[in-house]
Amino acid sequence: MCSPEVAKVVSERIAREGLPQVTRRGLLKAGGLGAAAAALGGFVPRVAAQEMSGGYSVVDLSHVFGENMPTYTPGEGPTREDFVTVEANGFFIQYWTLYEHSGTHSDFPAHFIADGATVDSYDPGLLLAPAVVINIAEKAAENPDAMVEPADLEAWEAANGTIPEGAVVLMNSGWAARWPNEEYRNADADGVQHYPGFSGEAVTWLIEERGINGIGVDTLSLDPGNSATFDAHYATLGAGKYGLENVANLDAIEGVAGAMIVVGIPRWEASGGGPTRVLALVPSM
Amino acid sequence: MCSPEVAKVVSERIAREGLPQVTRRGLLKAGGLGAAAAALGGFVPRVAAQEMSGGYSVVDLSHVFGENMPTYTPGEGPTREDFVTVEANGFFIQYWTLYEHSGTHSDFPAHFIADGATVDSYDPGLLLAPAVVINIAEKAAENPDAMVEPADLEAWEAANGTIPEGAVVLMNSGWAARWPNEEYRNADADGVQHYPGFSGEAVTWLIEERGINGIGVDTLSLDPGNSATFDAHYATLGAGKYGLENVANLDAIEGVAGAMIVVGIPRWEASGGGPTRVLALVPSM
Repeated sequence: MCSPEVAKVVSERIAREGLPQVTRRGLLKAGGLGAAAAALGGFVPRVAAQEMSGGYSVVDLSHVFGENMPTYTPGEGPTREDFVTVEANGFFIQYWTLYEHSGTHSDFPAHFIADGATVDSYDPGLLLAPAVVINIAEKAAENPDAMVEPADLEAWEAANGTIPEGAVVLMNSGWAARWPNEEYRNADADGVQHYPGFSGEAVTWLIEERGINGIGVDTLSLDPGNSATFDAHYATLGAGKYGLENVANLDAIEGVAGAMIVVGIPRWEASGGGPTRVLALVPSM
Repeated sequence: MCSPEVAKVVSERIAREGLPQVTRRGLLKAGGLGAAAAALGGFVPRVAAQEMSGGYSVVDLSHVFGENMPTYTPGEGPTREDFVTVEANGFFIQYWTLYEHSGTHSDFPAHFIADGATVDSYDPGLLLAPAVVINIAEKAAENPDAMVEPADLEAWEAANGTIPEGAVVLMNSGWAARWPNEEYRNADADGVQHYPGFSGEAVTWLIEERGINGIGVDTLSLDPGNSATFDAHYATLGAGKYGLENVANLDAIEGVAGAMIVVGIPRWEASGGGPTRVLALVPSM
């Protein structure tokens, strides 16, 4: 909807009628279209549905969920087989077996915490969140055991402003480019995995000081692959927050103002996480 | 973010500076915040992320995905079992078996069409869409074989305006209240199911005349349960569109201006559909 044609109509209108008196800052501070419409009389006509969905484009942050994916523990990938087919039966259904924590997926509190919150009863309002991408690709290229540390968060804020309350903070370590190869899991001769993750200290700071909803990584684990203590998992899930693992395509939303994350996780019964469609909504302008 | 405090700040600003010259219609036609900001100089500061996500609340349109769900063909529900537990292993993972078309789920073209589009390569941009809810609960209460007919769409448009391009049009037949009981599948003595669905004619009209992205139902099938010809399936999937089945909670978004659907389907490999988190984003004002 926010097409070149629309932009042209708007600029012609401005040429004709002058710039609106609502300042850029005032309009944005007011919370976008909703508040702007409220300011204009408190009435939102039904046509708003059309216009607002047209105001976003969708960026897919998910890998294909299928066979031959790298998994934290080898051998825990899914299987699929044809159950019925269009040719033989008139319609097509696959039969799957899967372990919840494979592919692009979410970790919810019950994954690590006895009596922790499960997916099926988790507040859906927390599944939409501002996206913040922290790039540590440079240090990860030098050291695969690198972590997102408080200093990385401070550097991000110095350049970009305060991390918003309710955000999902995503590590872009450049690791998605290794998917689905052996170098993604990157195990050494002793079987120890080497890839980046969050430090527990960084997660605790994000939760306590910034009130985030969750974190995400472009690797197999919220913690670096060589962690034996799972500090980032405990800090995240112990606080009732969630984590996203094996997130893809973060380059596409890094630094994009207004990007939001949608955590599209089916309501897996009694579950501590599972396969998830992670999408970003980006203002299309 | 669109709190009473913000509304107060905005009204004080208007009292002080007068109403903006951009008309309500002009602003909305321009595509919301994105275009408004474009008109104001093409710059969106990073704070927009915070404000925009705060402009929506999330409504869950999904049933819990688990055991004991009604399925189109009896016996095709999922199974789950503990694979590891926090108590015994330090963390919790379930092992699932599932047929793709169960629970709140999506149908993609490959479900009915040989060589039809699969989930993993479907354009993610089509997974965000304006939501339109057509209520046929009254006639469904009288006749469980009732269908959404073109006349229902005409009546909706007469009351609400044109169905927007790219919409997902959802049938609210009141059937979600029967979930997960026997009366949801509602089979008669001969095993024929009785619940409402879309007529093929209605779907064809929505696709050809309104350019919708897909349809959705609060029942087990896009077609009424007694259909032997699957007209709504063929009309939807044959046109490359998608369908949502076993959608819940449509009362909560019916008639809500600006509601959008997010189809949170994991990128199931080579698939004609599968378990999905269906969420609605509703402007919070």
